[in-house]
Amino acid sequence: MSKNTTPWIQIVQLDEPSLKNNTADAERLLQALKSNLNIPAIHIDLDLLKTLPSILRDAQFDLRCVLFKDQHQWVLIDISAASDSQISASLAVDLGTTRVVLRLLDLATGRSLAESAFNNPQESIGPDVLSRIHFVEKEGGLQHLNEIIVSGLNGAIVDLCASQKLKTEDINALAVAGNTTMTHLLMGLNPRWMIREPYIPVINTPGVIKADALGLQVNPRARVLVFPNIGSYFGGDLIAGVLFSKIFQGKQTRILVDVGTNAEVVLGNENWLIACAGAAGPALEGGVTRMGTTAGPGVIDQIAVDPDTLAFKIHTINDLPPTGICGSGIIDLAAQLFLSGMIDVRAKLLPAVCGSKIKKIDGLSHLVVVPAESSASGADLTINQADLDSLIRSKAAMYTILETITGSVGLTPQQLDAFYVAGTFGSFINPDSAISIGMLPDLPRDRYHSLGNSSLGGATLALQSSSAHEQIDRIRERITYLELNVNQDFMNRFSAAKFLPHTDTKRFPSVKAMQPSK
Amino acid sequence: MSKNTTPWIQIVQLDEPSLKNNTADAERLLQALKSNLNIPAIHIDLDLLKTLPSILRDAQFDLRCVLFKDQHQWVLIDISAASDSQISASLAVDLGTTRVVLRLLDLATGRSLAESAFNNPQESIGPDVLSRIHFVEKEGGLQHLNEIIVSGLNGAIVDLCASQKLKTEDINALAVAGNTTMTHLLMGLNPRWMIREPYIPVINTPGVIKADALGLQVNPRARVLVFPNIGSYFGGDLIAGVLFSKIFQGKQTRILVDVGTNAEVVLGNENWLIACAGAAGPALEGGVTRMGTTAGPGVIDQIAVDPDTLAFKIHTINDLPPTGICGSGIIDLAAQLFLSGMIDVRAKLLPAVCGSKIKKIDGLSHLVVVPAESSASGADLTINQADLDSLIRSKAAMYTILETITGSVGLTPQQLDAFYVAGTFGSFINPDSAISIGMLPDLPRDRYHSLGNSSLGGATLALQSSSAHEQIDRIRERITYLELNVNQDFMNRFSAAKFLPHTDTKRFPSVKAMQPSK
Repeated sequence: MSKNTTPWIQIVQLDEPSLKNNTADAERLLQALKSNLNIPAIHIDLDLLKTLPSILRDAQFDLRCVLFKDQHQWVLIDISAASDSQISASLAVDLGTTRVVLRLLDLATGRSLAESAFNNPQESIGPDVLSRIHFVEKEGGLQHLNEIIVSGLNGAIVDLCASQKLKTEDINALAVAGNTTMTHLLMGLNPRWMIREPYIPVINTPGVIKADALGLQVNPRARVLVFPNIGSYFGGDLIAGVLFSKIFQGKQTRILVDVGTNAEVVLGNENWLIACAGAAGPALEGGVTRMGTTAGPGVIDQIAVDPDTLAFKIHTINDLPPTGICGSGIIDLAAQLFLSGMIDVRAKLLPAVCGSKIKKIDGLSHLVVVPAESSASGADLTINQADLDSLIRSKAAMYTILETITGSVGLTPQQLDAFYVAGTFGSFINPDSAISIGMLPDLPRDRYHSLGNSSLGGATLALQSSSAHEQIDRIRERITYLELNVNQDFMNRFSAAKFLPHTDTKRFPSVKAMQPSK
Repeated sequence: MSKNTTPWIQIVQLDEPSLKNNTADAERLLQALKSNLNIPAIHIDLDLLKTLPSILRDAQFDLRCVLFKDQHQWVLIDISAASDSQISASLAVDLGTTRVVLRLLDLATGRSLAESAFNNPQESIGPDVLSRIHFVEKEGGLQHLNEIIVSGLNGAIVDLCASQKLKTEDINALAVAGNTTMTHLLMGLNPRWMIREPYIPVINTPGVIKADALGLQVNPRARVLVFPNIGSYFGGDLIAGVLFSKIFQGKQTRILVDVGTNAEVVLGNENWLIACAGAAGPALEGGVTRMGTTAGPGVIDQIAVDPDTLAFKIHTINDLPPTGICGSGIIDLAAQLFLSGMIDVRAKLLPAVCGSKIKKIDGLSHLVVVPAESSASGADLTINQADLDSLIRSKAAMYTILETITGSVGLTPQQLDAFYVAGTFGSFINPDSAISIGMLPDLPRDRYHSLGNSSLGGATLALQSSSAHEQIDRIRERITYLELNVNQDFMNRFSAAKFLPHTDTKRFPSVKAMQPSK
């Protein structure tokens, strides 16, 4: 038998009933489990209770028990003979607005068995949470949004289980991390008040819900931990990220940044956590330029400039002919343009340096990054001054948010002990480039860490240990949410950050070193 | 608005959401309730959560909340506008093997609104728990037994609610007290192992169950407190009786006796509780004689004998022509026969004294209690020696059980501070008569109290106060169950108790005084 690393599977050999020991079946079993686990109470659903006497006796009181926890207590989810070798599974879900990622785990060991992902079918209604919330106003709109995400999940569950030769009922526990809107739509809760001042969700801490109440095609007694949110704009995906990053533990003060249209930031240590979110602009998602796109095959994710020839050396995902440029590529590009002197400290294209790379299109100056003959489409891939100006605003907003949140606790961004970047963006970004343009603070590079899908990572952790439940509660309770007031102070910081790397170049000593000596 | 005496209805005026106070709807409401009630957590079901935002806003955040408790926490069962004047109800159920009694209460005040009763429809399967447990072995037997009691309850609920102009969904909390078998059959749990050594129930402490899981026609979110049992032979009806009798409180040592085919006895005070059950014989239920019957119109419930003429003076229920004699009447009769000298200390009929009251029927001596011309049927109502012998064995068993349980804690039956008799039997019995024949100990008469339907009384209490839940748990945990070993000691005590009132007449000083001086 594989060694368990979670407490969710318990093998118990009960004393058989006798006149000296004639307690009821349920109490006999629960007492043994409580004693094994050193816990005060375990809940058992009525439908499982109905099958208990025959399971106990058929298994000769030698049992394999599947447990999970809800917000109040442990729950006995299933029982079989100890000899039963069937894998019990759990499922971590990153319930993204755009993409939903599932990770199937062995419940006993916490080991990952398989992953899959699918595009959120709610995209057919609208690409973002706002458009979906508006759709709720239509007759049956909420129910439709709920049904398509539940059936999307069920389809993915069926396929994922089939790939591992498991039955869907072998899934006994789930953890779902999503933003507040996605979480509401999964539960069938109306999010309409979240987009109207004062922006009120139906619930912040949904806790643990029975799978059958959510319509999920798993063991109907399975429990689903739905990550809590702080409010309409700080969701369970971020709580999961904090759990995964572990910034809530230890004395070091660390920061977690999830970059998207919104930059979501959590700063803290074992004593306190402070969070904020702000519009960093779409530039960082690759949405700013006409050639911008999200990461995918053929997309430029890295760019270097030959310091002598100023020629672009591009790298594309899967080494395919370039189709566009993603966020990390844009940041690389801006950094290289700045370091090579093709743009100035205000990110203005310098025709004298760029030379023949500049081309007039419709009367506007464009910098050709990939000439038509090398691109996938056969058209030039270019960037123009407006694109660069937009990128500068985004990077300045990002830095200002970091400066504001660290400043709120009397620190500077340069004093952070570690810097975690979450998400796909985080896994592609080159810290040197982001620092070169002054988007991220000039920390020693070994303080930067990419977390990958921290939302899925946090959901996975919630299924791997019984202490994660309390950690989630503690994280949520401990986070202070900082409203970003766009006041004069903020605007002053923002203006200072609109230079490359910053008005105050002393903050970015390493950038000087990266610039080729002229 | 009527003043609440239970905590189950809470009126709360919430602060309306604002940018300064923008917690979610659920947390806003639950925080106010937790603060009002000074409790740490309240559960809310997903389906109620779905309606929460519109209820809150339609009611302008001025709310009437219906709550109950389960074994772990408080539960929010329903919400409406504070202006809603609809009564919220609760339902106490005495789930008897023979008869089911319902009491509808105002949830807010705990006040009784109406009662009803019906014969347990499972009687069509078998008159006692044993025959019903055997029926479970048949294909679909358990489901059938479950369905007929649930539909019996639902029918009674519909009628009871209609009589009070309530909707069945207005019932938000229930408490059900029944013996272990009846409780199992209500929950659909298989009782088959309860009648096989070592007599194991499926569960002892079912706790609180959602009404929809039981199929009850009330608010589907209503919670049902199912009284716990100690084992197969000590059920929730007795736990409810102990709760109702309050013998678990205070320093006085008091006893609770529920007399039926089994005598069920609980003895104790605030420090300890001890229980036992034993066969006291059917005599005390009125089942011993051919004229014996359960209490009902026309049934003899009281008998006196004129000390001069030895004429019987009978009283029947509703003063109708006599049809038979119930348990309390039989005890009266035996006491009167003994006190008037018509039977001796061994309960043998004395022809010399009885004279013409003795009539030979089929060659056997019968004592005519009601001559043919006065009875409802036009036939003599008689009792014979075999009937009296049977009664003596029953009363001796009863006294021996009382002597054994009090003896187990170093007391005599004469040292009891109070004596509670439960059930219909308890409400009809004349303590003087029961003492005269030595069935009950010779205590000052003011220590005897009839409790009526203590099972229903306990179920009612569980709906009237939030502390009853913990009291039930404490009673169950504190009861020590005494197995009655029919050993030599027991047999010696039983033999000594087979005299009228007892071999040791010093134990019954008041009986001497009741005997006419000769």
